[in-house]
Amino acid sequence: MGYRILETDDIPAYLRERGHWDEAADPQVREVSDGNMNRVFLASNADGTRSLALKQALPWVRVAGPSWPMNPDRADAEARAYEQVARVAPDKIPAVHGYDPENYALVMEDMSDLEVLRTLLNEGASYGPHTSARTGEFVAQFSFATSDFGMASADRKALIAASVSPELCKITEDVVLSEPYIEHEHNHWHEGLDDLARQFRADTGLRTEVADLRHTFMTSAQALLHGDLHTGSIMVGEREGGPVVRVFDPEFSFVGPIGYDLGLYWANALVSEERARALGTLSDHPDQLRLSWQAFETEFRRLWPTRVDTFFDDAYLDRFLRRVWTDSVGYAGTEIIRRIIGFAHLTDLTTLADPVPASRRALLLGRELVVRREELTSPQAVRDVVTSLG
Amino acid sequence: MGYRILETDDIPAYLRERGHWDEAADPQVREVSDGNMNRVFLASNADGTRSLALKQALPWVRVAGPSWPMNPDRADAEARAYEQVARVAPDKIPAVHGYDPENYALVMEDMSDLEVLRTLLNEGASYGPHTSARTGEFVAQFSFATSDFGMASADRKALIAASVSPELCKITEDVVLSEPYIEHEHNHWHEGLDDLARQFRADTGLRTEVADLRHTFMTSAQALLHGDLHTGSIMVGEREGGPVVRVFDPEFSFVGPIGYDLGLYWANALVSEERARALGTLSDHPDQLRLSWQAFETEFRRLWPTRVDTFFDDAYLDRFLRRVWTDSVGYAGTEIIRRIIGFAHLTDLTTLADPVPASRRALLLGRELVVRREELTSPQAVRDVVTSLG
Repeated sequence: MGYRILETDDIPAYLRERGHWDEAADPQVREVSDGNMNRVFLASNADGTRSLALKQALPWVRVAGPSWPMNPDRADAEARAYEQVARVAPDKIPAVHGYDPENYALVMEDMSDLEVLRTLLNEGASYGPHTSARTGEFVAQFSFATSDFGMASADRKALIAASVSPELCKITEDVVLSEPYIEHEHNHWHEGLDDLARQFRADTGLRTEVADLRHTFMTSAQALLHGDLHTGSIMVGEREGGPVVRVFDPEFSFVGPIGYDLGLYWANALVSEERARALGTLSDHPDQLRLSWQAFETEFRRLWPTRVDTFFDDAYLDRFLRRVWTDSVGYAGTEIIRRIIGFAHLTDLTTLADPVPASRRALLLGRELVVRREELTSPQAVRDVVTSLG
Repeated sequence: MGYRILETDDIPAYLRERGHWDEAADPQVREVSDGNMNRVFLASNADGTRSLALKQALPWVRVAGPSWPMNPDRADAEARAYEQVARVAPDKIPAVHGYDPENYALVMEDMSDLEVLRTLLNEGASYGPHTSARTGEFVAQFSFATSDFGMASADRKALIAASVSPELCKITEDVVLSEPYIEHEHNHWHEGLDDLARQFRADTGLRTEVADLRHTFMTSAQALLHGDLHTGSIMVGEREGGPVVRVFDPEFSFVGPIGYDLGLYWANALVSEERARALGTLSDHPDQLRLSWQAFETEFRRLWPTRVDTFFDDAYLDRFLRRVWTDSVGYAGTEIIRRIIGFAHLTDLTTLADPVPASRRALLLGRELVVRREELTSPQAVRDVVTSLG
């Protein structure tokens, strides 16, 4: 791993070397790393008229240190995903100024004027009319462009070969789609959820459904995905008076089932709703699954006439979208469950004074979404499950 | 493509160079190429006690010549498939003595003492009790070993990346799973089938089902497949008083849906049955789909307790096998249809004095298998369709 791990003091010279900084004075640099995995630096000039972000993957998990090695080629996956999205939805990701594969470093737009969606929601904000719609469109544009509908067969097979990401897929396969349903040292949960955690692990019917979703995750090569599309991977705000929505951090990107990206977003929206309900701040949370699905479906159908392979007919599109829907509902369920009785929990719930009631509702909802995904055929059917939780 | 295209006279020196021939006298060599794609040579010593086969991929389709270029790396796919099968079912493929990737040449067991299954069937032979059982086992052993059940997740993803085969997959996607259902210059058919060819191309319901099977072919990465498992890719015979079944020619090998291999074999068995019915030589043909499925299922279930990933439970196995069955029925239907109104036809039918009655029955059967694959849930249900053809 003979690459150069950049420290704050190295950034000005590095940016000059790579041709990203040609102002007279060196930029001021501060480290703003906050995800689990990587380092992020912001570099700006003195008067604040020019700034850049630099993200570098370390050969280990940042928050754990060298004792938890992690292949830095996740940065390649991230750069590849941004490159594909930039072709079709440049307005929905940060502008990428350059990728340095030797040092696993991305130089990008500084988005520090925007806010992380989860942070805003946790502070009591509503989604507003744009966030879920743009997110649904993002999934449609990215997945259509990298599916057999948007890309010639040979190009797509090359993309599949290039995008194989064994290490990060294994994390999802284990942490999301297996461990929460078995005894595993990674798992932890609030003691008020003991009974549900035990029930879920004893529920053989639930486990078979998760096994099914897991195998689909492992074998269904529908499109290049973001792979980790939660509300912490979305920034929102305003620029020049208009709304801005930016999806970032696609380092878990791989070729998989389209429903995985939608499902992750829905899980986060449904959990944010339980937080708001617990706090009495419920606003537009219940609309977000519908809004994102409608935007996804509308955009996918809008793109359909541009498909490169017209053997796929309109009746097949209908069938395909129904399956994406069903997968999405199922993955939403698995994502909710793993965030409460698995390894990595959500601040939406953990920062509640008493996380138990909201967590119980979410867990029960998650199970229904997994087990009944075939019969829940519309956003309204999902709403009915939420309502039935009492 | 600066490699060395071997002629008959080059073979002795080549075999010595590569360490395959250390006898005092050079072997006698004859070319026995007979598939569409490659050259095959047999080399043997004077007293017939030692012999080898050498197969080389050309940078074009052999029967067409340099005007139809074809990437010779299909030989890599073939060698990779043999390598994987050799781990788990060495008795069901020719012994491979060596692969020379620079010259796309495989040195293998001489199987000229065996006969091609299709040739035997066309001459009126029955299958006997072993052929379909061993073929079903072959699919089970090969696919289990290269699925997420038989291989650790990271190894399997490396196999997927290595096994991407855009050029040959594209041939299947087009010639098998699209062209027969549209107007295309490749297509031809007996004039006595005009009405059915027209009907099939106007049948939008049929086309949607084929689109579905086609997309599954393009996106379902379940296991490494043979990819072209017809009765011309199987040799049978006896050695030392026992039956021998050898599957060969896996150059279309790729990671795809397991049902594709089974479906191809079933299509060929069902067409051989129609030939035999037309000639009044029907014997054990109607048993072959059942025998191969039972052998596949029995072997897959026998291997199941050895799976590397025990999160997949027994109930998931049942569900998975049902889906493999359904896919297989559908692909059997597409393979029958494309062999009668598509590009490449089968001698089983073309050598009949009047191919029309058997071809009509087969076409109607093929359509039922595609369209009704979800409701045909057992070998008996398929038999009932055959019987209903009248």
